[in-house]
Amino acid sequence: MVATLRSGEVVTLAHGSGGKATRKLVEELFARELSNPLLDELGDAAVADGLAFTTDAFVVKPLFFPGGDIGELAVNGTVNDLAVAGAEPLWLSAAFVIEEGFPLEDLRLIVQSMARAAEHAGVPVVAGDTKVVEHGSADGLFVTTAGVGRMRATFGRPQAGDRVLVSGTIGDHGFAVLVARGDLRLETALESDTAPLHWLTASLCELGTQLRWMRDPTRGGLATTLNELASSAGLTVRLDEAALPIRPEVAGAAEILGIDPLYVANEGKLVAVVAPEAANEALARLGPDAAIVGTLTDDSPSLVLLDTALGGSRIVDMLVGDPLPRIC
Amino acid sequence: MVATLRSGEVVTLAHGSGGKATRKLVEELFARELSNPLLDELGDAAVADGLAFTTDAFVVKPLFFPGGDIGELAVNGTVNDLAVAGAEPLWLSAAFVIEEGFPLEDLRLIVQSMARAAEHAGVPVVAGDTKVVEHGSADGLFVTTAGVGRMRATFGRPQAGDRVLVSGTIGDHGFAVLVARGDLRLETALESDTAPLHWLTASLCELGTQLRWMRDPTRGGLATTLNELASSAGLTVRLDEAALPIRPEVAGAAEILGIDPLYVANEGKLVAVVAPEAANEALARLGPDAAIVGTLTDDSPSLVLLDTALGGSRIVDMLVGDPLPRIC
Repeated sequence: MVATLRSGEVVTLAHGSGGKATRKLVEELFARELSNPLLDELGDAAVADGLAFTTDAFVVKPLFFPGGDIGELAVNGTVNDLAVAGAEPLWLSAAFVIEEGFPLEDLRLIVQSMARAAEHAGVPVVAGDTKVVEHGSADGLFVTTAGVGRMRATFGRPQAGDRVLVSGTIGDHGFAVLVARGDLRLETALESDTAPLHWLTASLCELGTQLRWMRDPTRGGLATTLNELASSAGLTVRLDEAALPIRPEVAGAAEILGIDPLYVANEGKLVAVVAPEAANEALARLGPDAAIVGTLTDDSPSLVLLDTALGGSRIVDMLVGDPLPRIC
Repeated sequence: MVATLRSGEVVTLAHGSGGKATRKLVEELFARELSNPLLDELGDAAVADGLAFTTDAFVVKPLFFPGGDIGELAVNGTVNDLAVAGAEPLWLSAAFVIEEGFPLEDLRLIVQSMARAAEHAGVPVVAGDTKVVEHGSADGLFVTTAGVGRMRATFGRPQAGDRVLVSGTIGDHGFAVLVARGDLRLETALESDTAPLHWLTASLCELGTQLRWMRDPTRGGLATTLNELASSAGLTVRLDEAALPIRPEVAGAAEILGIDPLYVANEGKLVAVVAPEAANEALARLGPDAAIVGTLTDDSPSLVLLDTALGGSRIVDMLVGDPLPRIC
């Protein structure tokens, strides 16, 4: 496999998209070189000895956007990676790479926002580090969080007949950040959905092995996350287009920009797979904005099929390229 | 205290030095806003429930230098933060922020180096993340590692009469990186001392409460680390200049550049405080390059005093400003 990363090749924005290029880079470089049983799982968090451990770098641009900022995003993102692994988040760390000349007032706003998000989630930031690089050597501020959690539950395994649920509308974060960049000349009231998910995941964990699988569909969106599910479970994910919750503002922006909300990052949404007999209970636990959006089947290869509103069906591939760089 | 970070102020390279400005930023912004009992300790790692947790961002320039590279540094740096907290390092995470256009071959060399360092230390990298930013928005590559460890031991408390030991020569890493930058027009065989310290710290932990305190003197060097000791213990650290192990190449570079090796980063050296009756045993455990370099006293305020080779003594303050930006 290594031969497919050719000599002279360089890192591209697509390698950071969360889609196909990211997966290739992870599988053929990071996972290959650093291989060990825990890393090889390639989950959102490593799990062993009753603990979960995860990390995420945040490079979102702009740093402040409707509904949140990089600080809140960094706290919630790592809380959520632990949450969907079935863990109770215990501790966070935060490391800052700051460009010389960055306003201390903005740094304070971001750290205050992290503090509020950590307080809200009930997960303290217990360790940190700060590095400063020369003006021009970074774009303002990057934040990397890591998190440790205690495992609550082990799930069942996804199987044919299981239902796929999402906890609310998709695409809100990505479109909110795109609009905030201002280069779209689009006026909407869209806000990022950044939020912690660990209360929702704790509630679903009470379903025991009727809960099969959880993820937060961030970079690459719901489409990429469900492709990973199809691939790892060896099943088909059949999505019902009409059931997908999408805000009218997102649908409008999506149409104007030609960007499919299925590929757009969410930062406060849960996708869960549950046994069919637990679907209504799970739906109730996920709240009023949740929806049952699909079913797992074993009658086709490992892929995601979208049954469209018009009665047809099409393959939903992983993200190729990156329509939305630096979305998180 | 908050008023001392004034409106309109910006982040400077000194804020990343590990010295006085860093301490002020940490105390008046990060620790103040994110305050919680674990973070408030401001140790190299947070410790609770028998676990230790830490993080470090690495922005060293150049990425490859004599004796190591950013990957090896990132692995050893986090292993060492856990080690000096008295923990057995269990797991590492690694998050990469990569500039678009970065050569994949260099990325592979760095990841291979991390893999070798992790293998050598016996601590796997179990979680990771990769983000890519546009060309010009980062300087090649930044790596942030975090680590989880299991606590081995609790130390005694530093007290008057205790001895201060270092495990080997000081200043090697910082001067090696400076020379590697090439703008000094200096030719030396100096190499970074990057190395894992957890075997040494495990050995010292066997001394029980006769072991009082451990740190790895990275950014800001031995002087800054010992100032933190003096301040937290409320004691004077008396250093014996003649006992400080310094390579002739480092002494030479220091003289030419006018940079005191006491303020220069080490990446594979341990400084330990032990009870006087355990000093020789600790010295033997630290190996042939170790030295007893000082004593704690309670006859002066909380500061670091250097007894010079000429018979005088001078105050060794914390680092002010940053003579060596991006040294780790």
